[in-house]
Amino acid sequence: MAIWARRPEAVEEVNVAGCAHLASTSVAEVISDADVIVFATPIGAMPELAVKVANEVSKAVLVTDVGSVKGSVVQELDPIFHGRARFIGSHPMAGSEQTGLKFAREDLFQNAACIITPTKYTEGSAVPEVTTFWQALGCTVRELSPEAHDEAVAWVSHLPHALAATLVNAVTAHNPEALALCGPGFRDTTRVAGGHPPMWTEILAENHAAVRKSLDALIEKLRELATLFDRPASERDSLMNQFLTQAQAQRDRLRRPN
Amino acid sequence: MAIWARRPEAVEEVNVAGCAHLASTSVAEVISDADVIVFATPIGAMPELAVKVANEVSKAVLVTDVGSVKGSVVQELDPIFHGRARFIGSHPMAGSEQTGLKFAREDLFQNAACIITPTKYTEGSAVPEVTTFWQALGCTVRELSPEAHDEAVAWVSHLPHALAATLVNAVTAHNPEALALCGPGFRDTTRVAGGHPPMWTEILAENHAAVRKSLDALIEKLRELATLFDRPASERDSLMNQFLTQAQAQRDRLRRPN
Repeated sequence: MAIWARRPEAVEEVNVAGCAHLASTSVAEVISDADVIVFATPIGAMPELAVKVANEVSKAVLVTDVGSVKGSVVQELDPIFHGRARFIGSHPMAGSEQTGLKFAREDLFQNAACIITPTKYTEGSAVPEVTTFWQALGCTVRELSPEAHDEAVAWVSHLPHALAATLVNAVTAHNPEALALCGPGFRDTTRVAGGHPPMWTEILAENHAAVRKSLDALIEKLRELATLFDRPASERDSLMNQFLTQAQAQRDRLRRPN
Repeated sequence: MAIWARRPEAVEEVNVAGCAHLASTSVAEVISDADVIVFATPIGAMPELAVKVANEVSKAVLVTDVGSVKGSVVQELDPIFHGRARFIGSHPMAGSEQTGLKFAREDLFQNAACIITPTKYTEGSAVPEVTTFWQALGCTVRELSPEAHDEAVAWVSHLPHALAATLVNAVTAHNPEALALCGPGFRDTTRVAGGHPPMWTEILAENHAAVRKSLDALIEKLRELATLFDRPASERDSLMNQFLTQAQAQRDRLRRPN
């Protein structure tokens, strides 16, 4: 495996960790023997890097990325690689709020869902090949259009991030002393709010339409919940119990070793 | 240690696990040698049980509870125990969405905050004694009025629970297929939604005023966030980055081994 990094310090870190056969700041050097190239940079850096790669790469190479938004990324990268390499977008649903080589985990992708997003540009062979690639790392692969991907991850990743950050900011604004009292529930509910702000700003910006839509729908659902508190106690409790029971049933379906 | 349980099957379970010197459905039997009595039943069951305990107990005994709401509990239990035992409310911020003896953990209280809520009824000696009790289990003890407790936990426990359940229900309503794609972020953000619905219905009902207030304030904060999406891109991104940076800084303060 060969790793490209923008900063010489990052290349040095990879060399010290000994986790790649080759690490370099030179794109040409890193991709010279590649069969598969995976873009794992911030989304905004991908088009420029893609142009460099497209100029050097052979047509047989499979290129994918792990960007958290697919509509904009795929729209920009598809024409860059068209006729020059076999590109297809990917998004493995794994990782944590922490960044950097020291948080690398061998089992990161084990049991994770990975969404691949073929388009009319995608060469047919790229779908089974990228599927095999992610399956070999332990992923369950699902195919969606870039747009359907962006809507789905707005709900299960981008909106939860926005919510976690908003919860932390609301507590800070209204009852900052309460933060010192929190238990494991609050810590888990807000864990993702520890994520890298510039990266998440970029994700929320790239997927702004879908995030905004899910945010509006969530606010509506919260307002429904708030109105339950205005009902007579027995009615309130019965409806609240229904609301929580429905959530519990859906949440229980998610349990699995990951 | 002696354990009281309402159901004979629960007593049998304690006996099989061998985790108490005595287990019984008889209150009188269980408390006969007690120095400290801890109520760990649903909140609604506490007053009736407290009357039974108060009829049997000696004045020297320290009585506390671990109810998630303190205003209503303390208001009901204070007069029951007044002049008959030394009662003071407690709330250790520990536990998970799972219930039952099989999820017991020896280190449950290690590094947890425990809030104690003395009132004008509380005998002076009860404060240092209950503090020592929780500290011996690994807790950091904080003193608040029952009302200040209820406001604080509305923010860091009850509201997060309502939010997690609402997020699950909103995804289920708008994009149910997305649930199958979720990663560790969504799983952590919604973990508490797996909690026992009747118990949480009771908690939200007992603390309805504070929960409603925090819910309204959170909706307001979410609406502020939503309006950021209407701004010109560069302004939006700058404000979004500020918002996420503020949340990250506060969230980072919560990190500790628990």
